[in-house]
Amino acid sequence: MNVAVVGVGLIGGSIALAARERLGADVRESDPAAGGMSVAEALDGAGVAFVAAPLGVLGEVVDEVLAAAPADCVVSDVGSVKAPLLRDDERFCGGHPLAGSEQRGREHARADLFDGATWYLTPTSTTGGILLERLHRVIAGFGARPRSIDASEHDRMLAAVSHLPHVLANVLVKEARGAIGPSFRDATRVAGANPPLWRDIYLANRTELSRAIGAIRAELAAVDRALLEGDGEWLEDWQMFAAERRRELLEAEGAGGALAEVRMVVPNRPGVVAELALALGREGINIHDMSLSPSADNTRGEIAFWVPEAEAARAAEVVGA
Amino acid sequence: MNVAVVGVGLIGGSIALAARERLGADVRESDPAAGGMSVAEALDGAGVAFVAAPLGVLGEVVDEVLAAAPADCVVSDVGSVKAPLLRDDERFCGGHPLAGSEQRGREHARADLFDGATWYLTPTSTTGGILLERLHRVIAGFGARPRSIDASEHDRMLAAVSHLPHVLANVLVKEARGAIGPSFRDATRVAGANPPLWRDIYLANRTELSRAIGAIRAELAAVDRALLEGDGEWLEDWQMFAAERRRELLEAEGAGGALAEVRMVVPNRPGVVAELALALGREGINIHDMSLSPSADNTRGEIAFWVPEAEAARAAEVVGA
Repeated sequence: MNVAVVGVGLIGGSIALAARERLGADVRESDPAAGGMSVAEALDGAGVAFVAAPLGVLGEVVDEVLAAAPADCVVSDVGSVKAPLLRDDERFCGGHPLAGSEQRGREHARADLFDGATWYLTPTSTTGGILLERLHRVIAGFGARPRSIDASEHDRMLAAVSHLPHVLANVLVKEARGAIGPSFRDATRVAGANPPLWRDIYLANRTELSRAIGAIRAELAAVDRALLEGDGEWLEDWQMFAAERRRELLEAEGAGGALAEVRMVVPNRPGVVAELALALGREGINIHDMSLSPSADNTRGEIAFWVPEAEAARAAEVVGA
Repeated sequence: MNVAVVGVGLIGGSIALAARERLGADVRESDPAAGGMSVAEALDGAGVAFVAAPLGVLGEVVDEVLAAAPADCVVSDVGSVKAPLLRDDERFCGGHPLAGSEQRGREHARADLFDGATWYLTPTSTTGGILLERLHRVIAGFGARPRSIDASEHDRMLAAVSHLPHVLANVLVKEARGAIGPSFRDATRVAGANPPLWRDIYLANRTELSRAIGAIRAELAAVDRALLEGDGEWLEDWQMFAAERRRELLEAEGAGGALAEVRMVVPNRPGVVAELALALGREGINIHDMSLSPSADNTRGEIAFWVPEAEAARAAEVVGA
């Protein structure tokens, strides 16, 4: 398989390494900053292309790559905000690996960067099924856990679990004084991370982030009310709720174990595979692996999803298998 | 030296171990829950007493210990909120070690729990100088870094660096959904910690915590405004400011190196040593060690502070040495 990587920092570089070492792919890299191969050269004959350019220029680079990509090449990106990147092109499917490092740049790239990491995919009804299945397989081959999700839902979720923690870390740092304890160090580990990058993330996701900030301000008002009224029962319940909720979130994250296969025949038209993947994602069911076998006349395909055994029955119901 | 410990969980137990192992002290423990020695028995002949009872009953236990303590015994506590515990008694000086563990109870106590930890002391103008010096020496002997601070300033600071991070962790957890990344895990590590304990901490420090929550809400409103106006310059500056501020806080925390002595003669009356210690604390100067030698007629004393070499000149100026 030929894989093109456009934009080769930590993430792009790690994709290139993983594709070579884990999939034995022929990888071509293009990076405007580093010179070397052009986008057109990197895309020549590619079956999969990853755009790993900075968020501020990601849209233009995706368009440039789509213009250069072969008709049967699936194009994805790795940006952390997805709705602004939707493209009406069956070859495109947005992506976002939840992986990174404080170390940046090609020199810190590692083939194992994505091991066990959730890798969001945001297919739409125009995304081609065969192309999506290929992308899914490549990402699983990197060791990541691909998960399909609606682009807006992705942005709402990331506002809550990533962008908001960065905002609150900054706010906490501004309030702090004196000796700092371990809870403060943990809570502010990401404060002030990479200013130009985070400026772009905040702006790209400003609608969802603003909504999340509004929810936080309302919740803080409720806590403040309980404090001023001396309402110990409310505060203890609230503390217990947070403990339970965090346990649930961590447990959902750590789910592993045996897999089961859910198999069905689907018509071969754009969007079908994407709809199924999205439906499973909405139910919180991780697709650990996916395979698609088109029929000889190309009108139908048999699709198989591998999902956690405990969720197989529910998955079959969701996809109508 | 005889040391009494009243309330013997993780902190009280670790104080008892550190006093025995590091100072060779004769330690008597009293814990109402565990039975055994009474408060009066533990305090009999004690030179230093630590009250490590739960915050909800700490005030009463401190009063009980002061009633039982000898006239020349210094009494301290380890509660995480200090202003409600001020006592008009020259034997009392509030304290708060920034040490702990997710594991609780006497069985997890360790003699090295306080190594390198900041240990706040909140002397007042009634606190006796000789008693404060003794307390300071014992705490430094545990391996901790004692630091004198005004009780209200302590509570304001702890609201910002400890209680507020707990509140924000809970709020973040409530907003979260889906896959959680490393920044979320770090930011919410303390969410839902020990509900009855944290209910009591929130309530005990509600005035300062409410003020801090107000500041956070105002800051979030400013961030929200920048987002909605698409003000990238503001967001990038804000991100850079947070990075610098966190670096400063961590550097202040990690300060070490050579010590210098600042020595002076002071009148032997209540509050003098406390005022000097507080003045240094206000300037952010850590007193690594302190010694007080009363003159033969007990009207004056020579006091020596060991402070970081780089801050010795400033320290001398602050205390008028």
